[in-house]
Amino acid sequence: MDLHILDHRLRVISISKNGLVNFTHPLIKLIFLRNRTRCKFFSLTETPENYTVVLDEEGFKELQPSEHLKVESSRWLPLNVVSNGNASSSSQAVGVTKIAKSVIAPLAQQHVSVFMLSTYQTDFILVREKDLSVVISTLEEEFNIYKEVGGESVPMHCQDVANGLQKNAIQPTVHPVLIPQNQFCVMSLDPDTLPSIATTLIDVLFYSNSPKEDAQSALSQDCIKFFSFSLIDGYISLVMDTEAQRRFPADLLFTSSSGELWRMVRIGGQPLGFDECGIVAQISQPLADSDISAYYISTFSFDHALVPEEDIVSVTNMLQHQRKDPVAS
Amino acid sequence: MDLHILDHRLRVISISKNGLVNFTHPLIKLIFLRNRTRCKFFSLTETPENYTVVLDEEGFKELQPSEHLKVESSRWLPLNVVSNGNASSSSQAVGVTKIAKSVIAPLAQQHVSVFMLSTYQTDFILVREKDLSVVISTLEEEFNIYKEVGGESVPMHCQDVANGLQKNAIQPTVHPVLIPQNQFCVMSLDPDTLPSIATTLIDVLFYSNSPKEDAQSALSQDCIKFFSFSLIDGYISLVMDTEAQRRFPADLLFTSSSGELWRMVRIGGQPLGFDECGIVAQISQPLADSDISAYYISTFSFDHALVPEEDIVSVTNMLQHQRKDPVAS
Repeated sequence: MDLHILDHRLRVISISKNGLVNFTHPLIKLIFLRNRTRCKFFSLTETPENYTVVLDEEGFKELQPSEHLKVESSRWLPLNVVSNGNASSSSQAVGVTKIAKSVIAPLAQQHVSVFMLSTYQTDFILVREKDLSVVISTLEEEFNIYKEVGGESVPMHCQDVANGLQKNAIQPTVHPVLIPQNQFCVMSLDPDTLPSIATTLIDVLFYSNSPKEDAQSALSQDCIKFFSFSLIDGYISLVMDTEAQRRFPADLLFTSSSGELWRMVRIGGQPLGFDECGIVAQISQPLADSDISAYYISTFSFDHALVPEEDIVSVTNMLQHQRKDPVAS
Repeated sequence: MDLHILDHRLRVISISKNGLVNFTHPLIKLIFLRNRTRCKFFSLTETPENYTVVLDEEGFKELQPSEHLKVESSRWLPLNVVSNGNASSSSQAVGVTKIAKSVIAPLAQQHVSVFMLSTYQTDFILVREKDLSVVISTLEEEFNIYKEVGGESVPMHCQDVANGLQKNAIQPTVHPVLIPQNQFCVMSLDPDTLPSIATTLIDVLFYSNSPKEDAQSALSQDCIKFFSFSLIDGYISLVMDTEAQRRFPADLLFTSSSGELWRMVRIGGQPLGFDECGIVAQISQPLADSDISAYYISTFSFDHALVPEEDIVSVTNMLQHQRKDPVAS
């Protein structure tokens, strides 16, 4: 299999809930006005806590510093696994499950922190730029590694890694999880039809919170507020629950197989930060063992796995087994 | 003829050019998200100097105080002339010309300041709430006057006017005028198709100025930057030049008679303020004498008359006759 290091240097940002109004102008530009920006990698995810924005440096320039903005200090590089057809795999699973053993687990063993961003089209594994040589050393046995530079794919090989590779992973913290009741869809949209849903999308993203709504009420009735939009290299991906989905015209958004619904596992009792390793591995490894598909979306505060609705009982059991306390549901 | 005092109490506001970004959130709500606001009267006009916003108190509540916002202190009431069919008029002219002699001139004579807002559908004559009794005394000879209250039209009659009506108007200042070269269209749109032009309209309104563009360059090449959008009681009106018009899909916007183009006369060398009377009368009276149609849009700084392209030469001559200096063109 091939692993591509994509030609984007990314920043990971949070915007506070009541600070979003101050960023309406740049965000609408980044979402809807492709001709006015050179940003090629943009993702916006609403959670009860805040909005997480992942974007390249062209996009980052559009955001003015503000008390409402928190910027993670690193530059992140997105990795992308490309099946080149000759890899033998018996797995039917999609998403992060497919790369759990080949990418996620080995990086966790080497204490490389990853920030995951699953989309309709693919799964991006973001790693810190400073960790790149460790990443390459770790993965080059399994993958042909290419670095995309100005549209060209350049083969990469191991550079000198100052610290030898470690093999003994520290047992990571087992974080509490939350399993909200809402059902999610992972959808896409022809970029040319984006204008047709502009007012609905603007309404959902920028006007659906009452200003006094707090994180607690956004988690009320066992449902979680979660909406993710990304526009990456011209491809649009949307993750929303069925309630939000009903607000959009049914004929424009599409899923890979009609009616496919997903349930969420939110990982973390307290905000997870960016330095802990092995969080994705802890969830994705057992999912891979059971061949259960999963999308995985990291945000500024928490991580979110999406598993098929029909598998949520076995996933819940698996998570309870990992933990001593019963899983909140 | 009937004169209706509409059931809106309006504020007249200016937003500075580089302050607009701070008002993107409330303005997009007022323009596109009718279900989220109780505002029924909204107008936004871009000129080289600033943005003029006229809106009712429900809309005004959406705008946070800011150094970029100037608010005219009065409450204004919109008047609207309704031809009830039995008025005999030989005039084919439309717009402010139709009401020049019956409304504009008498109010000027009584020193009532007016703020004009012509739209595709009708012409709103805004008067200060405190001037209402003088307005009624002045116009009740010519009109049946009704005040709209909660959807009902209530007949109004002269109340005691403390100061007797004056008859000797002071000769008003003759202001310099500017006649830019661009051609304008006055258009409308089915409100249900507004979402279809949302991204284009957002682009034109919020992203078409480079931040460093000053009033001078917005007047460069003898063309003026002027764009007006209004959404009043559910009706949309747009005034834009042919360059802006080309950015919109041709099949959604409509004019009263296809291909009708208008030229602009901007009135005022220095910002006109809100207290001077007779400015509209000075232009509309001779237009009425010549039976030339005209739209008229007041803004925070200057007034703007739009006359049919084929009449611009005779209007220019008429304006030169009024003035000693040649008209800048």
